[in-house]
Amino acid sequence: MSHDPLANKANAWSALFAEPVSELVQRYTASVGFDQRLWAADIQGSLAHAEMLHAQGLISAQDWADIQRGMAQIREEIASGQFEWKLALEDVHLNLEARLTELVGQAGKRLHTGRSRNDQVATDVRLWLRGEIDGLLTLLTQLQAVLVERAEANAEVVMPGFTHLQVAQPVTLGHHLLAYVEMFARDHERLSDVRRRVNRLPLGAAALAGTPYPLDRERVARTLGMDGVCQNSLDAVSDRDFAIEFTAAASLAMVHISRLSEELVLWMSQNFGFVTLPDRFCTGSSIMPQKKNPDVPELARGKTGRVVGHLMGLITLMKGQPLAYNKDNQEDKEPLFDTVDTLRDTLRIFVDMMAGLQARPENLRAAAQRGHATATDLADYLVREKGIPFRDAHETVAHAVRLASERGLELAALSLEDLQAIEPRIGADVFGPLSLEGSLAARKVLGGTAPEQVRAQVARHKARLAG
Amino acid sequence: MSHDPLANKANAWSALFAEPVSELVQRYTASVGFDQRLWAADIQGSLAHAEMLHAQGLISAQDWADIQRGMAQIREEIASGQFEWKLALEDVHLNLEARLTELVGQAGKRLHTGRSRNDQVATDVRLWLRGEIDGLLTLLTQLQAVLVERAEANAEVVMPGFTHLQVAQPVTLGHHLLAYVEMFARDHERLSDVRRRVNRLPLGAAALAGTPYPLDRERVARTLGMDGVCQNSLDAVSDRDFAIEFTAAASLAMVHISRLSEELVLWMSQNFGFVTLPDRFCTGSSIMPQKKNPDVPELARGKTGRVVGHLMGLITLMKGQPLAYNKDNQEDKEPLFDTVDTLRDTLRIFVDMMAGLQARPENLRAAAQRGHATATDLADYLVREKGIPFRDAHETVAHAVRLASERGLELAALSLEDLQAIEPRIGADVFGPLSLEGSLAARKVLGGTAPEQVRAQVARHKARLAG
Amino acid sequence: MSHDPLANKANAWSALFAEPVSELVQRYTASVGFDQRLWAADIQGSLAHAEMLHAQGLISAQDWADIQRGMAQIREEIASGQFEWKLALEDVHLNLEARLTELVGQAGKRLHTGRSRNDQVATDVRLWLRGEIDGLLTLLTQLQAVLVERAEANAEVVMPGFTHLQVAQPVTLGHHLLAYVEMFARDHERLSDVRRRVNRLPLGAAALAGTPYPLDRERVARTLGMDGVCQNSLDAVSDRDFAIEFTAAASLAMVHISRLSEELVLWMSQNFGFVTLPDRFCTGSSIMPQKKNPDVPELARGKTGRVVGHLMGLITLMKGQPLAYNKDNQEDKEPLFDTVDTLRDTLRIFVDMMAGLQARPENLRAAAQRGHATATDLADYLVREKGIPFRDAHETVAHAVRLASERGLELAALSLEDLQAIEPRIGADVFGPLSLEGSLAARKVLGGTAPEQVRAQVARHKARLAG
Amino acid sequence: MSHDPLANKANAWSALFAEPVSELVQRYTASVGFDQRLWAADIQGSLAHAEMLHAQGLISAQDWADIQRGMAQIREEIASGQFEWKLALEDVHLNLEARLTELVGQAGKRLHTGRSRNDQVATDVRLWLRGEIDGLLTLLTQLQAVLVERAEANAEVVMPGFTHLQVAQPVTLGHHLLAYVEMFARDHERLSDVRRRVNRLPLGAAALAGTPYPLDRERVARTLGMDGVCQNSLDAVSDRDFAIEFTAAASLAMVHISRLSEELVLWMSQNFGFVTLPDRFCTGSSIMPQKKNPDVPELARGKTGRVVGHLMGLITLMKGQPLAYNKDNQEDKEPLFDTVDTLRDTLRIFVDMMAGLQARPENLRAAAQRGHATATDLADYLVREKGIPFRDAHETVAHAVRLASERGLELAALSLEDLQAIEPRIGADVFGPLSLEGSLAARKVLGGTAPEQVRAQVARHKARLAG
Repeated sequence: MSHDPLANKANAWSALFAEPVSELVQRYTASVGFDQRLWAADIQGSLAHAEMLHAQGLISAQDWADIQRGMAQIREEIASGQFEWKLALEDVHLNLEARLTELVGQAGKRLHTGRSRNDQVATDVRLWLRGEIDGLLTLLTQLQAVLVERAEANAEVVMPGFTHLQVAQPVTLGHHLLAYVEMFARDHERLSDVRRRVNRLPLGAAALAGTPYPLDRERVARTLGMDGVCQNSLDAVSDRDFAIEFTAAASLAMVHISRLSEELVLWMSQNFGFVTLPDRFCTGSSIMPQKKNPDVPELARGKTGRVVGHLMGLITLMKGQPLAYNKDNQEDKEPLFDTVDTLRDTLRIFVDMMAGLQARPENLRAAAQRGHATATDLADYLVREKGIPFRDAHETVAHAVRLASERGLELAALSLEDLQAIEPRIGADVFGPLSLEGSLAARKVLGGTAPEQVRAQVARHKARLAG
Repeated sequence: MSHDPLANKANAWSALFAEPVSELVQRYTASVGFDQRLWAADIQGSLAHAEMLHAQGLISAQDWADIQRGMAQIREEIASGQFEWKLALEDVHLNLEARLTELVGQAGKRLHTGRSRNDQVATDVRLWLRGEIDGLLTLLTQLQAVLVERAEANAEVVMPGFTHLQVAQPVTLGHHLLAYVEMFARDHERLSDVRRRVNRLPLGAAALAGTPYPLDRERVARTLGMDGVCQNSLDAVSDRDFAIEFTAAASLAMVHISRLSEELVLWMSQNFGFVTLPDRFCTGSSIMPQKKNPDVPELARGKTGRVVGHLMGLITLMKGQPLAYNKDNQEDKEPLFDTVDTLRDTLRIFVDMMAGLQARPENLRAAAQRGHATATDLADYLVREKGIPFRDAHETVAHAVRLASERGLELAALSLEDLQAIEPRIGADVFGPLSLEGSLAARKVLGGTAPEQVRAQVARHKARLAG
Repeated sequence: MSHDPLANKANAWSALFAEPVSELVQRYTASVGFDQRLWAADIQGSLAHAEMLHAQGLISAQDWADIQRGMAQIREEIASGQFEWKLALEDVHLNLEARLTELVGQAGKRLHTGRSRNDQVATDVRLWLRGEIDGLLTLLTQLQAVLVERAEANAEVVMPGFTHLQVAQPVTLGHHLLAYVEMFARDHERLSDVRRRVNRLPLGAAALAGTPYPLDRERVARTLGMDGVCQNSLDAVSDRDFAIEFTAAASLAMVHISRLSEELVLWMSQNFGFVTLPDRFCTGSSIMPQKKNPDVPELARGKTGRVVGHLMGLITLMKGQPLAYNKDNQEDKEPLFDTVDTLRDTLRIFVDMMAGLQARPENLRAAAQRGHATATDLADYLVREKGIPFRDAHETVAHAVRLASERGLELAALSLEDLQAIEPRIGADVFGPLSLEGSLAARKVLGGTAPEQVRAQVARHKARLAG
Repeated sequence: MSHDPLANKANAWSALFAEPVSELVQRYTASVGFDQRLWAADIQGSLAHAEMLHAQGLISAQDWADIQRGMAQIREEIASGQFEWKLALEDVHLNLEARLTELVGQAGKRLHTGRSRNDQVATDVRLWLRGEIDGLLTLLTQLQAVLVERAEANAEVVMPGFTHLQVAQPVTLGHHLLAYVEMFARDHERLSDVRRRVNRLPLGAAALAGTPYPLDRERVARTLGMDGVCQNSLDAVSDRDFAIEFTAAASLAMVHISRLSEELVLWMSQNFGFVTLPDRFCTGSSIMPQKKNPDVPELARGKTGRVVGHLMGLITLMKGQPLAYNKDNQEDKEPLFDTVDTLRDTLRIFVDMMAGLQARPENLRAAAQRGHATATDLADYLVREKGIPFRDAHETVAHAVRLASERGLELAALSLEDLQAIEPRIGADVFGPLSLEGSLAARKVLGGTAPEQVRAQVARHKARLAG
């Protein structure tokens, strides 16, 4: 039997353990099946640790050189698919360490000086997540840019604005799309806030209490580009706030995706017919030959549940855990990984798909002409031009709407005589506000739907996203 | 290019689609990566469908024979790992159908008569889940049996019963373990209820509206051993209640596991020292050479979050979905599959692990001797033997407890003089009720902790589990 | 100071406690603000307990008479609003007990013989919930009856059946409504299963370990109409499965409500215009005079989140709790109560509202004539009448759909020449299957959308609901 | 009948509505029962809006004066409990507006110029929440200060540091408490980030599309002390990100509270006996006279579920909602309000309770002497002093632990001979590292448990919290 306990993990604690871990337990507790993806972060963290050990005189120059050489080879082996992962070695950390020791001997063993798997895994996950957040921030910027471009192209395309899914007031499609830019801008802001709390260094906390070795933790943090050092070792190894906070931010981003998806599904329904998506984002039916289904938005809407479920799972995981590290924490990885994958793939596909969104302006306009969309404009006209208090104007318009409905007309199609019969002060100038274009143009207040305001917002966003 | 659309799924809807599905979309929407496990259920369902098509005269005897032959070969190919799964064919259903058509030609195409992927996938998932539930029911029975056996072995081992994690009254370890038997018995009952609602046949609902072919749905249900036929085609293809209900039942089972795990972790802590688990269920530490950690219970406790997260995800998925099938529903599978896997692996390992649970009776008894565990017995004595109303007796005992605490003694260690100084009616016969054994033996009411009652419950459970 | 500890709860544990509970703590921990609603169940449980104490000779006939008299008076005081609830007495149980003792003296104190608040509160909640479940079962039956009636009235009203919110195949509105009958029937079934597990008696478990008094627990269970006795005292006082299971069943019912609500909101949108709801279920807008908003379905859809949140809260509450009773459990009540209230109010309002649902048949038919709804029927015609394999027929129809789309026509509006140019075997008899009525009538398979099948299902449901 | 529609809300939309809202619907949809608490924010927002309307020349000086006068009176009426809330007026906004119009006539009606309930309610909730967040930030600071004070007082009190609830390494109680300071510091940081996104102005978005009135939204934002203006009107009225993000941050704070609570419950258990809490935070038992239960931490742990449930409810609420405002959104308030109340009450009580935490140093030390807590120190000694690679030292120590266990001793109690028999290089200087104090003092790395490091951290926190 090997003298190196890592060579056969099942015997790693042999001095104390009367029997090896059962195979079922080994499978139940192993994480190497899913934590392999941390390998690059693990190497990066180990090198920063080793560099510091050397700078502090804790390992020799030779050890430091050996570790660099060994890690370079491991990196190559993994990248080329040559690396042999072993379930018996439980996780990514022990797999890499065992291989390093094989390659460079004692130096590999000395790398573990002053650290433990508890602070090592916490460091790896943070490093990895930081990189993923950077990728997500880029995708969120790209998605905003695509939506801003689509908004600009549709800055004057009139459509019904809905509340309660009832036609409320005319808006422009450009204005509608910019609402999502606001949402994804907030997601970007939130993820940037999360990044600050992710980007702190647990390494040096060791198992839970710190280490007697004179480590320079701030040097390691600097080497790794981190914003700071976790200031309490017990907290450092047991904190999973960053995973929960990230997943909460991802859930909100997916909620926004789900809202946009819901609208795309509605808009592509024959009863709306507002937009088309390129065929490459749709699928057909194995039984109904005429079908073209908006699979991507539907699936994205469904995947929201997945991410929200992960958030719930992570909170449940941490609730009521005493300090410090408990094995429960290993369960943080799969939900975190899947959250990252789901959000990244979804954003990628939406960047591509939204660029192909085509409006069907005639259908959008026709829909805006249903439901007396400019009724509020008539009320505003009565207030502004005739000095009638809003609440009274509101009631007057309700009577006009009733008359129009009884005649099977839209409000804007009533004659001046009809309108004057209800309220004599109404003049011929009412038909400006009653038109869709008149209604739109009037709402030029900051944040309003007027095309001139939409274009101003487009300009603001472009400057912001370029910045 | 092939005439068979299935030979190249990217072109399957070529007549209507101007461009193939993008590769990113293909990966995003494909399910074959995870729904392969449904293959046996898919074949089983297809054979029952084909048998009925033949019985109804909808396909020829030759077709029926061809389909049986083709399916037999596919079954073998999959079992032996020879089957080539294609991402381009999206899911398990199209993969099997395409291979069948390759093998047996037109008969394979005719198998799809009167069905659609919508009712096919719903049928497959139900068939598969029914089988998994049967396995889980067996495991729940085994776990109960193991706990009953451990309860019998520890029917007289005294330990502190806790409320608020404060010593409350003495109980036996056997009694404590039987509490979990009750929980897992309810889980068994609940899963059996769920099974009834899982075991209904959607097949024949076709895409959403039923089919013009004269199918005999009840025949198919009988062939598949199902309890009934889904009576509305729109509901049949869109219902995922059974998945949510199953996951809710699984969540409760995991909550029970988490409670038991919490106790095992507490009990193995040096501050309790109540029990030991075999070494093969524990792991050591890479940094602390003395550690023997209860990894399995901790991880099981953590995995509760995972299953609860899946429940949340599935509910979020279905909330607000209009009829009938939407692509969102494809997202039901991974959480359902992972819930089954997690619960099954956890139960398996607990069956094995709980069988190895060893009590440390001396520590259990010592703990029961802390915290004035028989204070209630003194109050009961005052009520029963001396006719003092309970509320007054309660106050008297509080004074005795205070006296004992001030002297650094347990209540049961006070002298008769001390007790009589507080309440003169107390006699020497008080020391029976004040002893741990006296306290236990007295609680022989149905469901109580007296060893005689524990043994009666053990007998009842054994008869029930054998039944 | 009073001799009766209950007269001043802040001093109840005075012998042991150096200071009274702080007022902030009193408010934080008190439940009397929300558990008052258990008062009738508490009295019912107490009377059954007292009756048994008397039958077992544990209290005198006089005590039993006093308790009955006192409880009758308390019942009257509460019903008439005269009862004075005291925060200092924490919860409903101590409030009632203190008042009883005021009214009948020692007998009131003796009522507590052999029970504890732990088993008392568990019993009260179960009794109360059982009653609420019975009310909910009735409401679910009423809602099904209303939907069946609406289905019958609309058994022949054609509408588009959707998958992916794209027009798929024609269905009838009656058929569509029956899908919801299936869902609410499952909810009824599930709640009945839950009721069995709710309706078990914890009383007699006392604080956690059973009691030395010779209680006849099965007698109490019979008196209270319960299905059985909780067989383990530790489990009896700490089990909250029934609350979680009930809330899970309620969540599913709300998911069904949310799906129906989503459809009502869609159907009332001007872009659908499928149905109207009576004005009394709609509200207007303070700013847009033309609005008539489907507030009730929207709010019901929103309230789904509330109930699901309660489910998640309850599971989080119980996860990882060691035995037996912990104070955390007090937090089970508010979510449980609010779940009952939300589901009951929602069902009530839906019973009333759905009875007023009016179809707009012309709009429903017009929508069914968009989207080539009978394309599948053409494929089926080619298979059935011309012997073409389904997969090939599917492709042929896709070509026909493309031709129709290019001409701006529906598939059913193509001429025979056009169709024969694509597939020469098509005959004039194709126009039967291609018509909406032909398509509907053909789907008479069990569970299909054919009016004759819808009427058969209506008859089945009527018989079932009457049963 | 009144001309003022607000005088009788049931008739408010009478021109269009054939029947009044049913009473059941009125109760189902009304929010005035719970949104009353927004009254001060509603008045504050209205005054800022009116001031701007006046500055923009949209209302007269007289109107502005009337509105101020009316609002002052309403403020007084509410504060003194004289204000009469009417269910028929649905919500807080209409109640205030109706009263204002009663008091000041037309000016009250003109206040609604250019706004709608949609942007008004969004503004109110944000203003109110901002104020609550400020209160919570103060409480989080106070709680940190209390914990820092307790940490300082216990900077040298040795206790076992646990991983897996197994004794791992000695730490100080001060160090342990500082871990929670880190958590609550992160909560403070997170809530401050959330505050920025809460503190933006929706007012001016009107119903959904902006308004034709020339509002100066930035002026209103400045008046209200807000950080910015919502830049898209559709997003402004439908965004509930801030509520979800706040509830997510609150959930994390409650997770921290739950972890601390779990430890307090453990530490007060007789099997730990690590600390005491003042009696005023504990309660007794109605049946067990000796009990002193840690009710507050248990209840706080339970209330975590409540807040997490609200988070899940809110996400479920928003998922898949199309733009813009839907009635579902009204369901955001109760969970948000209850989250604020729960977190605030919990923090308040913890500030008070933690100040009363008393350590039991002898028990803490005794527990640290179980479990071979300094085994790692022996390994570190072998590495540091004798140049043995860590992995080999680990194995050597495991043998020493086994020997000690077999003799029923702690590792630190082995003789030098025993130790040298296992590893001859061990010298007499080993007993420094093997002692609890030696182990502690050695871990002086940044974030480590050494008393000198704990005191340095205390100083850092004090400076930070004072800042």
